[in-house]
Amino acid sequence: MGVAGAAGIGWGAAGPRERESDDALDVVPFYGTHQAGIETTPPAHVAFAGFDLAPGVGREDVIGLLRIWTDDAARLTQGIPALADTEPELAARPARLTVTVGFGPELFTATGLTARRPGWLRQLPSFPVDRLEPAYTGADLVLQVCAQEATTVAHAVRVLSKHVKSLVTPRWVQRGFRDAPRGRTMRNLMGQVDGTVTIAPGTADFDRLVWDDGASTPWLSGGSSMVLRRIAMDLDSWDELDADGRELTVGRKVTTGAPLTGTAEDDEPDLTAVDRNGIPVIPPSSHVARARHTHDGERFLRRGFNYDEAPAPGQLSNSGLLFVAYQRDVDAQFLPVQQRLAEFDALNEWTTPIGSAVFVIPPGVPAAGHYLGQQLFEN
Amino acid sequence: MGVAGAAGIGWGAAGPRERESDDALDVVPFYGTHQAGIETTPPAHVAFAGFDLAPGVGREDVIGLLRIWTDDAARLTQGIPALADTEPELAARPARLTVTVGFGPELFTATGLTARRPGWLRQLPSFPVDRLEPAYTGADLVLQVCAQEATTVAHAVRVLSKHVKSLVTPRWVQRGFRDAPRGRTMRNLMGQVDGTVTIAPGTADFDRLVWDDGASTPWLSGGSSMVLRRIAMDLDSWDELDADGRELTVGRKVTTGAPLTGTAEDDEPDLTAVDRNGIPVIPPSSHVARARHTHDGERFLRRGFNYDEAPAPGQLSNSGLLFVAYQRDVDAQFLPVQQRLAEFDALNEWTTPIGSAVFVIPPGVPAAGHYLGQQLFEN
Repeated sequence: MGVAGAAGIGWGAAGPRERESDDALDVVPFYGTHQAGIETTPPAHVAFAGFDLAPGVGREDVIGLLRIWTDDAARLTQGIPALADTEPELAARPARLTVTVGFGPELFTATGLTARRPGWLRQLPSFPVDRLEPAYTGADLVLQVCAQEATTVAHAVRVLSKHVKSLVTPRWVQRGFRDAPRGRTMRNLMGQVDGTVTIAPGTADFDRLVWDDGASTPWLSGGSSMVLRRIAMDLDSWDELDADGRELTVGRKVTTGAPLTGTAEDDEPDLTAVDRNGIPVIPPSSHVARARHTHDGERFLRRGFNYDEAPAPGQLSNSGLLFVAYQRDVDAQFLPVQQRLAEFDALNEWTTPIGSAVFVIPPGVPAAGHYLGQQLFEN
Repeated sequence: MGVAGAAGIGWGAAGPRERESDDALDVVPFYGTHQAGIETTPPAHVAFAGFDLAPGVGREDVIGLLRIWTDDAARLTQGIPALADTEPELAARPARLTVTVGFGPELFTATGLTARRPGWLRQLPSFPVDRLEPAYTGADLVLQVCAQEATTVAHAVRVLSKHVKSLVTPRWVQRGFRDAPRGRTMRNLMGQVDGTVTIAPGTADFDRLVWDDGASTPWLSGGSSMVLRRIAMDLDSWDELDADGRELTVGRKVTTGAPLTGTAEDDEPDLTAVDRNGIPVIPPSSHVARARHTHDGERFLRRGFNYDEAPAPGQLSNSGLLFVAYQRDVDAQFLPVQQRLAEFDALNEWTTPIGSAVFVIPPGVPAAGHYLGQQLFEN
């Protein structure tokens, strides 16, 4: 499209017609006890799309929407075009696509199921550090769409959005990216190693802290919760801080991500260590010290992405982090840590939460013929 | 940053500590007869950043700016932090980074060098199909920053922008992406194979049609020109068109990109072929027929990227193409093709140019000690 030149041949024909890289054809299984996209290693690209239910939409409409999303996601994640996919060729490179669906608090009201809403499912309390913008805050439904290729993400978001357009109003789309050596932690756009302290998939801790066991909310067994916070970074003022200042702010070394009391990224921070003058090596005001769990049950899974959008007029950057936390219980795990950080964290001088949303993540779809969220509506 | 969980270990430590993939450490040479980023195979990510010169900025300031950009680009493209790089760790993954610099028409006025401005260097004439938005149109200076990783692009744009912030006003940043099997043509977000007709790097045609030979503008020998058009796609109405309608609009098969008269993408379209009823197989109104060069000298290099931004309220998508053309002479190569398409192209019903800018691309930096654009200022 656009305009075309002529009979020449491009990079296309110039190079050998090699087969696709494995990455582009790799698929993540769709069916399972849990939704994919949580335990899954995060790929390079994400889009979070938030929707509100259209006025008058009720239980049967929502079930219909979830049947459509289930069918679309089951196909697209396997490299198969959606039913009536108008751009089927864009489905040919799944590139480890995952589609993860979450429900906001109001979905339970609209469907008459408030009795089944988890107690922690509500907008977070307002923190003094917040400068939340409605354009990035709250939603009745969320899609987390992840893949190794941005074109795959764009196509999946488009298909999933348009197939339910009569039932929802799009509220926001937030795109992000992350790049890291295989098996290593990403860096954020402040240059910090970001996400060291999390929970390793495949461990008993992960099962206990991320997945709901259905004890208090039977329909949610195998599900989880997602907190999405859009955190703007003031890179202009951050850039005025030298390496020492940055390390005392964060409590970690910039080069390695190691705590100031250690030598390797995964070393445990020693918050009691003092220097020869008796001054704590890791300042009590630092991010690491403030974010520290007070007990094991405050831990959660982090799965964040960078964002970098076109700057507003007069600005150099519009950058930050899509902070994403998965945990069984928002109130018990995420909230106490967030409250400590909001109360005081040296890093708050350079970061500002500008978006916030909380969702319950229903369990996975066990097999074909079932639909996402069925446990909520039919058990 | 944000909030942290606890003593668990992430995907980081969970996986083996493998060495970086080659892609992340691959570098494209910076020094040479030509700037990199034109003949270079396009990687997955791009950002185009347009700047206007600040009021009062003149020749010596511009030379100073170009010295800074030269030094920054020479380092960053090789995986070396820029001088005074405040996030040096983000330079460690060059991922085939290229930085390509272009000059808009007004740069010649500000530097008192209007006599050296190429005749074709001006904003394109206004076309009836255009709905140009100032936010994406024109600029005194442009950076094309390409890399295989979005984090690398974000860091490079940030460094290059902030190091010259006292001399310029940022005008726009446009980000894009492309994904294709190695050695194959990308697809745009309409699902079409996009960019089949171009000029293959490494051929005599490329040298003749893309690189200036200095005959009429001696300082420009080894340089080129770039046309950047932001073309919005109306995917909602495009999706109402069936495959036959799409193929007659474009003149190519959706599945393979082959012309309707051929079987392979690179087959030459036969605009004279008719069916049994005497009707042209490729409609004269189709994009392929209208874009067809009338002589060999109308060909140019295409190097486009998809864009997919957050939709406006009430919209499902904000998608399109960053159409990029490189050629020796805009007036002789790009313009006649564009005029035919603007006059009539069946595809125009679904596409709208919303941004437009033209730049001269100075030659490459031959070796350390020289700076980008030196040939303009010192010869």
